[in-house]
Amino acid sequence: MANIPPTVTGRALVSHSPYKTGGWKLQNVSLRPLRENELLVEVVASGVCQTDLHFAGLETGLGVNYPRVMGHEGAGYVRQIGPNVTAARVNDPILMSFSSCQTCEGCRRGHPAHCHIFDPINFEATRENYVFRGENQDGSGEADIYGQFFGQSSFASWTIVQEQAVVNVSGLVEGKEELQLLAPLGCGIQTGAGAVINAAGAKGEDTVAVLGLGGVGLSAVMGARIAGCKTIIGIARNEARLELALAVGATHVVRIDSNADLSAVTEGVRAITKGIGADITLETTGAPGLVAEGIRMTANKGRVVQLGSAPENAVLNLPIHEFMVAGKQYMGVVEGDVVPREFVPKMIDWVKAGLLPLRKMVGFYQAGDFETALSDMRSGKTIKPVLVW
Amino acid sequence: MANIPPTVTGRALVSHSPYKTGGWKLQNVSLRPLRENELLVEVVASGVCQTDLHFAGLETGLGVNYPRVMGHEGAGYVRQIGPNVTAARVNDPILMSFSSCQTCEGCRRGHPAHCHIFDPINFEATRENYVFRGENQDGSGEADIYGQFFGQSSFASWTIVQEQAVVNVSGLVEGKEELQLLAPLGCGIQTGAGAVINAAGAKGEDTVAVLGLGGVGLSAVMGARIAGCKTIIGIARNEARLELALAVGATHVVRIDSNADLSAVTEGVRAITKGIGADITLETTGAPGLVAEGIRMTANKGRVVQLGSAPENAVLNLPIHEFMVAGKQYMGVVEGDVVPREFVPKMIDWVKAGLLPLRKMVGFYQAGDFETALSDMRSGKTIKPVLVW
Repeated sequence: MANIPPTVTGRALVSHSPYKTGGWKLQNVSLRPLRENELLVEVVASGVCQTDLHFAGLETGLGVNYPRVMGHEGAGYVRQIGPNVTAARVNDPILMSFSSCQTCEGCRRGHPAHCHIFDPINFEATRENYVFRGENQDGSGEADIYGQFFGQSSFASWTIVQEQAVVNVSGLVEGKEELQLLAPLGCGIQTGAGAVINAAGAKGEDTVAVLGLGGVGLSAVMGARIAGCKTIIGIARNEARLELALAVGATHVVRIDSNADLSAVTEGVRAITKGIGADITLETTGAPGLVAEGIRMTANKGRVVQLGSAPENAVLNLPIHEFMVAGKQYMGVVEGDVVPREFVPKMIDWVKAGLLPLRKMVGFYQAGDFETALSDMRSGKTIKPVLVW
Repeated sequence: MANIPPTVTGRALVSHSPYKTGGWKLQNVSLRPLRENELLVEVVASGVCQTDLHFAGLETGLGVNYPRVMGHEGAGYVRQIGPNVTAARVNDPILMSFSSCQTCEGCRRGHPAHCHIFDPINFEATRENYVFRGENQDGSGEADIYGQFFGQSSFASWTIVQEQAVVNVSGLVEGKEELQLLAPLGCGIQTGAGAVINAAGAKGEDTVAVLGLGGVGLSAVMGARIAGCKTIIGIARNEARLELALAVGATHVVRIDSNADLSAVTEGVRAITKGIGADITLETTGAPGLVAEGIRMTANKGRVVQLGSAPENAVLNLPIHEFMVAGKQYMGVVEGDVVPREFVPKMIDWVKAGLLPLRKMVGFYQAGDFETALSDMRSGKTIKPVLVW
């Protein structure tokens, strides 16, 4: 701790207001002292996820707290620990995942991603979550800046992380470059791979369909391959993503034709599965029309796993009788329903064994180039941008 | 076979047209000869289920085939077997359940109740399903009459049953009276008990809520008690049914107040479960408003099992995001997803051990009193009428 100055300063990507109005700014910040169960982390990388854009793209609503630092796929080294921290020691490499209360029924039964207060803990902010301090957007003096988005706010060179969000990877990771590559494991990758392996319990005989081939969908394809599934169908609009899906484990692809009725997607899956449909369908888009097709393309007794975030007020119109007679299951799954401290080490093994070929999805960007990273994510040039610090 | 006359005659409750237009009539009929994989059965009893009233209450549509004999909870003795029958021998006591193809993916994976052609096999009728012949409703001569509703059409003193619908209970049942009591096991009871024990896999630590307390709902309550569930909440409008639920295993009840908003039901369940909700909710009503409350009253990571038939075009409006974040599961289950030849013997054991107290639900009626049976079922005086022959 001798190397830590009394006031830590660094750079952070601060969201002063929605991204679309130019409200994101890389700037110098200072950090407050640690409190109980917090760790000071020197961040080496942080993946960019749609959820960052969602919460720092809105004007108002749940979890919209300006100014704030986003970022929830962080990787870094612990440089200082607050009172009562046992999850890591100084200089341990860590990955950051989501936070949970550890006391509710959901947490106690081993489902921290379905913590009963997941939303307030991970998205909302109170005065306790002021972590940073820095200049206002217009340069008119200084203000407190919220941190601890997903318990971490890792779009910063230094940040203060809640202990529950920490996955200690000491002994599992060789050096800084490998740690940077693994940054997205703590959210996007576990959301896809965890949903298919852990929540849906895919087996070799299962036919798996994946709707949407962003970072989560491609991770679901990889997860299905790890589970040994015989038929893996990737579904997306973008040709390049379909090719990438084939490169990381899909056995078939179905292209969503924007000019055709969405039901054509279900016909495509039925054609591949001799009319039976998919045993497990992973819905990663959250688009209600595709959710409905996801249920249609699923076989009798099959499972449809919802892992893509739908808009807050989006509704699925489910035909009750038809659904019942077919014996289908529709299940909601957050973060792959994994316990990150158990699942992240497994994913690291899969990365090392070539089964989670992250390099095919990841593109590295200097934090200062965040505009390019976001634009490449939007255009589809990069599936998973990772900001390096 | 010496005692079987070349043409078998008997009485049958024939639905010439919808019940509400007076189209049901008890009359003499003759039966055609047996074909391959069919059994001639002397029926001793047949439970009455809402599904009989549904299919012989409609003017047109799927499975509406007049004139037809309904009845799908039959019990009786085999008196003759057709070619290739191995499920039972002459004079074996049997219970009758649903039919299935045994060749589709659903059947091959052990889910005959989710047979891909369950509807055509059990509900529709073709010329092959002409089993009976008898007088027209207006007495203007004779006509062929469809049988094999659920492979059995057991509202008749004699019927021809498809082998797949047969559960041989020889060695498990003492005599005719016991066989009559057990008649409803093959549909209503397994639908409720099977859903909670088999499909939902209820465990002792689970809190179970049962929406609707007809024959299926009360069987679900009994099933939850058999599974050892600590908290079992029965929900219905009718006070007498709530009392009956308490008598057969419910630990709590919530009354649906017709004058209050349906959400009061969810509040009632939350009050009993310290705000957490039910781990397993069995929805037996098929009423879309109650289905929606069923999902709301279920805990994070809980399962909602749809076993009540909704109207053909009924739609559930499911809030996608909220459902996903809570990690809930909604599953359709027909006939408890049981294999009747495995599950019926278990239920007979439970009846003998006092764990499925059928006598609390069942009322016996001579077939000639079918009008009284139906009226008592409608008024709630009898939960499960059984016609005896």
